[in-house]
Amino acid sequence: MRQDINYDFEERIELLASLLSEKKFIELADLLSRTNPIDVEEFISNLSDEDSVIVFRLLKKDDAAEVFAELDHDQKQKLLSGITDLEVDNIFKDLNFDDMIDTLEEMPASFVKKVLKRSDSETRKLVNEFLNFPEDSAGSLMTTEYVELKENFTVGKALDLIKETSDNRTVIYTCYVTGAGKKLLGFVSLRTLVTSNRDVLVKDLMYEDVISVGTHDDQEDVAKQFGRYGFTSLPVVDSERRMVGIITVDDIFDVMEEETTEDFQKMAATTPDEAEYLDSSVWQLAKNRLPWLLFLMVSGSFTSTILKNYQNLIQSMIALNIFVPMLTDSGGNAGSQASTLVIRGMATGEIDTSKDWLVVIFKELRVGLLSGFIMGIVACAKCVLFDKVNFEVGLIVGVTILVIITIAKIVGSMLPMLAKKLNFDPAIMASPLITTIVDSIGLICYFEVANIIMSIY
Amino acid sequence: MRQDINYDFEERIELLASLLSEKKFIELADLLSRTNPIDVEEFISNLSDEDSVIVFRLLKKDDAAEVFAELDHDQKQKLLSGITDLEVDNIFKDLNFDDMIDTLEEMPASFVKKVLKRSDSETRKLVNEFLNFPEDSAGSLMTTEYVELKENFTVGKALDLIKETSDNRTVIYTCYVTGAGKKLLGFVSLRTLVTSNRDVLVKDLMYEDVISVGTHDDQEDVAKQFGRYGFTSLPVVDSERRMVGIITVDDIFDVMEEETTEDFQKMAATTPDEAEYLDSSVWQLAKNRLPWLLFLMVSGSFTSTILKNYQNLIQSMIALNIFVPMLTDSGGNAGSQASTLVIRGMATGEIDTSKDWLVVIFKELRVGLLSGFIMGIVACAKCVLFDKVNFEVGLIVGVTILVIITIAKIVGSMLPMLAKKLNFDPAIMASPLITTIVDSIGLICYFEVANIIMSIY
Repeated sequence: MRQDINYDFEERIELLASLLSEKKFIELADLLSRTNPIDVEEFISNLSDEDSVIVFRLLKKDDAAEVFAELDHDQKQKLLSGITDLEVDNIFKDLNFDDMIDTLEEMPASFVKKVLKRSDSETRKLVNEFLNFPEDSAGSLMTTEYVELKENFTVGKALDLIKETSDNRTVIYTCYVTGAGKKLLGFVSLRTLVTSNRDVLVKDLMYEDVISVGTHDDQEDVAKQFGRYGFTSLPVVDSERRMVGIITVDDIFDVMEEETTEDFQKMAATTPDEAEYLDSSVWQLAKNRLPWLLFLMVSGSFTSTILKNYQNLIQSMIALNIFVPMLTDSGGNAGSQASTLVIRGMATGEIDTSKDWLVVIFKELRVGLLSGFIMGIVACAKCVLFDKVNFEVGLIVGVTILVIITIAKIVGSMLPMLAKKLNFDPAIMASPLITTIVDSIGLICYFEVANIIMSIY
Repeated sequence: MRQDINYDFEERIELLASLLSEKKFIELADLLSRTNPIDVEEFISNLSDEDSVIVFRLLKKDDAAEVFAELDHDQKQKLLSGITDLEVDNIFKDLNFDDMIDTLEEMPASFVKKVLKRSDSETRKLVNEFLNFPEDSAGSLMTTEYVELKENFTVGKALDLIKETSDNRTVIYTCYVTGAGKKLLGFVSLRTLVTSNRDVLVKDLMYEDVISVGTHDDQEDVAKQFGRYGFTSLPVVDSERRMVGIITVDDIFDVMEEETTEDFQKMAATTPDEAEYLDSSVWQLAKNRLPWLLFLMVSGSFTSTILKNYQNLIQSMIALNIFVPMLTDSGGNAGSQASTLVIRGMATGEIDTSKDWLVVIFKELRVGLLSGFIMGIVACAKCVLFDKVNFEVGLIVGVTILVIITIAKIVGSMLPMLAKKLNFDPAIMASPLITTIVDSIGLICYFEVANIIMSIY
């Protein structure tokens, strides 16, 4: 029954759904075994509680554990409450170690206790140890299912060991060589092993300058290492360089997505939150956003003071007033263009603040003058031709645009670098905060330019 | 000379630099061979032209090609002009096929011609074919160095083939099984091969439901597949499902970074540009930003018209005027919080517009009312107590905040989803555009609220 299979996950999920609704369980089980666990998870997550237990029982042993690991917290709990203790134990036995830890972390303490009581003492000890690693640390990401070799092994012995002891879960493409007390000495790739003669010693093949991470390293730094070197796995060592686990690239994709989301949240002046948007309550969303909104509103009211101070000027030339929002917005936009690009450049490591800050500021100064000049001419023409104000006001607006855009570019590029210097996260110096700062500067410029030009006329 | 090596790339690069300055070339060559090519590249990229050629010549053959592939365009050209034709040919022979294509794409046509003239006709044909794939397509990312098996091979034969024919560059952890005319039939992992008996047939081990991408698929979609499934490589097929190459995860990290940068650029109202910030000229930066700044400035001047229309109201109650920037900024901030979170949710696939749009809008409505209510009270109190305006004005400001925040949240969440519906990129509906739109709505609300409250008093 070979066909030209063009695997498309949406089609596949529809097909699974139709087999389920027709109760064709044998065909369903077969198709499930040929479907990627990620897609099976998506299929199951949209089923009723009853149906999801039915489908789950149709899965092969190994697939069941993989699919289970992908389910979200609520779905896991629902499923676990729908199956027998024996089935629960089987799932936990087949789970990758890191997925087991993740699952146990999410479950109520009473459940964890019950599962651990039924498992052997070694597992129990290891689980308790791993549960203690801080969230977002390398330790909380790692798994223990890797191949450990000794340096005096021959290639033949190493390959036999891999063949005998590794199961589906074990990472075997990079094998780690340890010495006394599990000290990490080096690694050898399965590629090297299978392309070498069986009697060569592992120590003659191994690469000693291993790049590793510590158990308490932040997951963001771990992700940076993966990104920098393009690794598929990295060893984790404790403070004495003893090998304790490995981290695999599939877990890093999630970390990268999380970290990027966090940057977006900060740049929109929202307290970062790992919870998914749709799962967050209204109260939670408001709590993440309100402090910043209030802070910006209160600091933004500095503009009121400025406007009050120039009240007389505005009264004497009321036409000035109508261009205030347009001017402050333009400044905010120009500033946030600069700050966003600089923040991103710093995040990807392209801009090295200590080395490049002067280059960046000088560049933005020139970009600001160039853009500001062109925009100033357009603004002046627009004011005179469309808003029908006199040339004096048009000139004031045009010159102000030039000044505001230039200052906004400089401030926008400087503040993220300054934040870094002061050990703040540069991402908070994004659009909202820059806008608030540039607004005040912009207004003062506007009225001072007006004063100067009016005194000339 | 084994030590407890704690590999830190900054220390390593410093050590390399000091060996170079002391002209200890033998130690330098040894240390280079034990240093990750990525870090060697960073080291070389900061050297003078002369020194970089010296260091480059100290590298081992395979390392040299890997380091070369990591260099940026200018550095490649500099290096190539400093070495002999023979050395150039050797580098190109050792390059991964995808890196060779990338390099040739960047080089002047005359250079490409020269290199191709010196290579064999098969390479020439393949190179010309690959150079034709559109930039940002799967075809432009792929490499040809993978293991291809036939279904009637035994495991033993497959392993021998891998051992004999694969070199350092070939991806061997996933082997692809093809039939007549190179049709992709399935894959088998090296894990399965090394843990199976030598006389089992490949066709009994292979997994048939292969997830693959097409040569002309967009690289962003390819990256999504990697992210979804956590793959380390993916096969690329042509329109007739013939296997033409594979894409590996290390290239995908770069794509992910590029795509995220593109999103950031769009969200800051800048034309996306792949060129790095520091490499871009002032003119280029201005060109990317000016069209948006001008567009936003001109559409933002709609606020001038609104202010002009309410001129009489403002004149009769001049205190209203000083709160305009604070109110419009608060609306802009609230709107861009909502739009950023929704844009990000859509990018990660969490929010499915067609299914979730009503949920999202209803959620934002409630978040808006809750935040707006609290902010309104704070704003009113602040106006009366600090800005010493009368309670009437304070009430107008407070009620306006409630209205503006609520509307801003709804507009901010709705517009990205609407953009998607209309096949625009949701990312353009970020901060700057939302601010411009919310400003106008906010001003009208403000003055209408003022009219209502003043008519009651």
